[in-house]
Amino acid sequence: MYVRNCWYVAGWDRDFPAGVPTPVTLLDEPLVFYRQSDGTITALEDRCCHRLAPLSHGQIEGNDLRCMYHGLRFAPSGTCNEIPGHTAIPKAMKVRSYPVVERYSVIWIWMGDAAKVEESLIPDFVGVDDPRWHMLPGRMDYEVNYELIQDNLLDLSHIAYVHRNSFGGGRADTNKAWAEAQLCITPLERGVRVERWMKNAPTPPHQVALAGPVCDVLTSFDYLVPGIFLLTSANYLPGAAERSGAERPTETPVFSSFTAQAVTPLTRRSTCYFFCFGPSARTPGAADLKQAFLELGERVFNEDRRMLQAQQRIIDADPSRRMVLFDVDKAPMLYRRLVERLLKEEAAGAAAA
Amino acid sequence: MYVRNCWYVAGWDRDFPAGVPTPVTLLDEPLVFYRQSDGTITALEDRCCHRLAPLSHGQIEGNDLRCMYHGLRFAPSGTCNEIPGHTAIPKAMKVRSYPVVERYSVIWIWMGDAAKVEESLIPDFVGVDDPRWHMLPGRMDYEVNYELIQDNLLDLSHIAYVHRNSFGGGRADTNKAWAEAQLCITPLERGVRVERWMKNAPTPPHQVALAGPVCDVLTSFDYLVPGIFLLTSANYLPGAAERSGAERPTETPVFSSFTAQAVTPLTRRSTCYFFCFGPSARTPGAADLKQAFLELGERVFNEDRRMLQAQQRIIDADPSRRMVLFDVDKAPMLYRRLVERLLKEEAAGAAAA
Amino acid sequence: MYVRNCWYVAGWDRDFPAGVPTPVTLLDEPLVFYRQSDGTITALEDRCCHRLAPLSHGQIEGNDLRCMYHGLRFAPSGTCNEIPGHTAIPKAMKVRSYPVVERYSVIWIWMGDAAKVEESLIPDFVGVDDPRWHMLPGRMDYEVNYELIQDNLLDLSHIAYVHRNSFGGGRADTNKAWAEAQLCITPLERGVRVERWMKNAPTPPHQVALAGPVCDVLTSFDYLVPGIFLLTSANYLPGAAERSGAERPTETPVFSSFTAQAVTPLTRRSTCYFFCFGPSARTPGAADLKQAFLELGERVFNEDRRMLQAQQRIIDADPSRRMVLFDVDKAPMLYRRLVERLLKEEAAGAAAA
Repeated sequence: MYVRNCWYVAGWDRDFPAGVPTPVTLLDEPLVFYRQSDGTITALEDRCCHRLAPLSHGQIEGNDLRCMYHGLRFAPSGTCNEIPGHTAIPKAMKVRSYPVVERYSVIWIWMGDAAKVEESLIPDFVGVDDPRWHMLPGRMDYEVNYELIQDNLLDLSHIAYVHRNSFGGGRADTNKAWAEAQLCITPLERGVRVERWMKNAPTPPHQVALAGPVCDVLTSFDYLVPGIFLLTSANYLPGAAERSGAERPTETPVFSSFTAQAVTPLTRRSTCYFFCFGPSARTPGAADLKQAFLELGERVFNEDRRMLQAQQRIIDADPSRRMVLFDVDKAPMLYRRLVERLLKEEAAGAAAA
Repeated sequence: MYVRNCWYVAGWDRDFPAGVPTPVTLLDEPLVFYRQSDGTITALEDRCCHRLAPLSHGQIEGNDLRCMYHGLRFAPSGTCNEIPGHTAIPKAMKVRSYPVVERYSVIWIWMGDAAKVEESLIPDFVGVDDPRWHMLPGRMDYEVNYELIQDNLLDLSHIAYVHRNSFGGGRADTNKAWAEAQLCITPLERGVRVERWMKNAPTPPHQVALAGPVCDVLTSFDYLVPGIFLLTSANYLPGAAERSGAERPTETPVFSSFTAQAVTPLTRRSTCYFFCFGPSARTPGAADLKQAFLELGERVFNEDRRMLQAQQRIIDADPSRRMVLFDVDKAPMLYRRLVERLLKEEAAGAAAA
Repeated sequence: MYVRNCWYVAGWDRDFPAGVPTPVTLLDEPLVFYRQSDGTITALEDRCCHRLAPLSHGQIEGNDLRCMYHGLRFAPSGTCNEIPGHTAIPKAMKVRSYPVVERYSVIWIWMGDAAKVEESLIPDFVGVDDPRWHMLPGRMDYEVNYELIQDNLLDLSHIAYVHRNSFGGGRADTNKAWAEAQLCITPLERGVRVERWMKNAPTPPHQVALAGPVCDVLTSFDYLVPGIFLLTSANYLPGAAERSGAERPTETPVFSSFTAQAVTPLTRRSTCYFFCFGPSARTPGAADLKQAFLELGERVFNEDRRMLQAQQRIIDADPSRRMVLFDVDKAPMLYRRLVERLLKEEAAGAAAA
């Protein structure tokens, strides 16, 4: 059900303060994160091996985490290194420890086979500390299976309908441009790339000051395993699409913005949606625009959430119903096929081991 | 579990205003109702065939309903007649459309095989616009399986206990009359008729002004597939029961009231109870009594709901327990047998098809 | 899953006032308790045999309980002795009646085979009316399976961690004494006895006035089928443990307190925890300390509840995980083995019958 040998975003780095164990459920597994004395982030199974009490109710002691039910103490490796009043420690007394890395303003966790951990598989994320963009961290929980968010992001034609009054500014011509744009869809080794030229597209009211009234807009995103979405939107002077032909334009955009997002399954029916979104650092007054972009993101993703949660309820009312897919679903289908291949490979790897 | 080739009451006509799609779950199926340009009521499956999003989050356009996830547009027949940005529409792109009829102040829906739809099977309901009675529309949702309401209505001896302080006015003699009345139970082609003479019955305090202190009361109801309850209560001068013998009395009642109700399953554990209740239009000041009758109905059906929901919880705590039925359950048993016969016929019809 | 041929505590005697039927779910079975005219406590199945309505919505009439759905009346034996409007009463019209006894300020109920009822199996409980101690009745509901509370009580080493700031007064030396005390564990015919000497143990701040700054403390408890916990804690002058050797000390304690508790399963995932707790009647000002001991109990058991409910959620997230038990779990394991033996005996007895 989940690809496991990959890096998931567990949260923004700032969501894990020192001194307190932080419980997080990921892929239906209860985890506890804490920071060692030097700040190193650590993740253990949130379940003491003794009586299955949550370690997140425990106490950090130096680099270790002590269960506060009967006092067993665990090292970052998951090994129990103290049982109060006992000198012998049974060998079975250990909990699972997960590989974690702090990078690009987020915490990455490897949910699969620790023997296969490979740091190079961490996607080239762009976090809120990247100097090229001005962005603030956002998050939103959806009561849906992660696949619904994935399908939603991989087909942006929904912007013309779900976001007609937010991104679309309530303008029929803007929304028509979204619904009818030509796409260039490319499979990547661990994802799918979608590029979309909207020519002579009217700018939504709230961006006219930044981008001018009409532009050629190139939006281009990569959706990468296991749910990393990186999108650049660049507004060019009209005619830029013609001028650049099949190539990426070489001219400087009038305005550009960027969003990085991560779709992390919490459980079968709940998913965490991390996002940051903001203007290019070259935009005049970019730093002051951060908050407005965060709020636009929250408004827009709330529109998605409302639709997707309703969709999930309809699906659950009769799980036997199949979707009827067609052209518009090419990118979501490519990505699903990639996931199915990875799942098959992991199952084969596990069977061979 | 549900008889399907029949007409269910989906709601009062006024519950479906023009301009907004109205979601209703009936028999565990998500439906959306909307009105076409000329007001014609329409019901579709509330599930876009593309990605299973709810059409009730959609937008009415003339006679059609557009899904506001990716913009597919559906005709009242359920056929998809537009996919934005696409000229070819896959044949599989359609949703189920349900036969609906607006009549007797309510909306009727055929939940079964559309090929077998038969308008003559709509029961002779009496709605709030009937000139013979003064009534207002009421509704109440019960967290119970519809069979518990059906059994409750088909055996009115419960009035002496559940409604001892409302209908019974807290009077022992009134309640005794309800508990001990002689019944005449008659099977109908698509229902059961129950007639009950209470002779020399003391009138509950709040009706003394309308009916006098003591009457012979004839209550007579039909309970019809799939859950239509039509009851007339007529108060006669004492001795009327004797005078009329086995026949319906020919003399004019001192007072009479009427109630029409519909029991519609929403899900396995929730049921909608529609009702109207009021005095004969010939009653002096009848129009002014509407509101009081509605409120009496609400009080009384709340008493039922409290009991039935508790009963449902007890049943669910151990579903293996069987009821022990006896004489008093004759009418409920007759009706259940009728339902079982219809279910068997439908299953046979479906197997043959 | 539950030992049945034994006496469970259904509640404090004062929780069952005369005149109103009281519904209680025990061992997943809905029950209704009521008092007969002379105050005798009675327990019936809370489910009328006719249509499975709850008798707890009924009305007490003398020694009987009338169902207020259709008026059937039941004797304390569970026999139906009246059906309004009917003279013949079907033989199947009866509900289960449970043996109950009022003793030691609580109501005891026999949940098993009524043919095997044995009053001598009622444990020697100590209720709030016992003159040796000053105690008030308490109760708390936990959303956990009863076994988690049982395991918690049978291993008091958790006091050093869960109750470090309440019982332990936040003192490292007091908590160390709890974690490292030597235990004497003895199997009983229907339970387990655990005795624990803490030598030279510093008294938690709030008890210094009662017990002096340092004591030898002997805590001794019996945990008896089906969940009765009786604990005495006695503070002696330092050296008492040495002086008494392997025997119980003969000297008078400086201070002693007592707690009686009962762990009663309501359902698979909810358990009622009855408790009383207080000082010896010989303590100066004992009567005035009642309330403070009740409040300390509530604080402490809330700490347990928080931990145990979190433990239950972790267990339910993956029921396949097994606990890893060791020395510290000797008493809980002895008791579980006793329960398994009793369950096996009951199953064999039921199969033979």
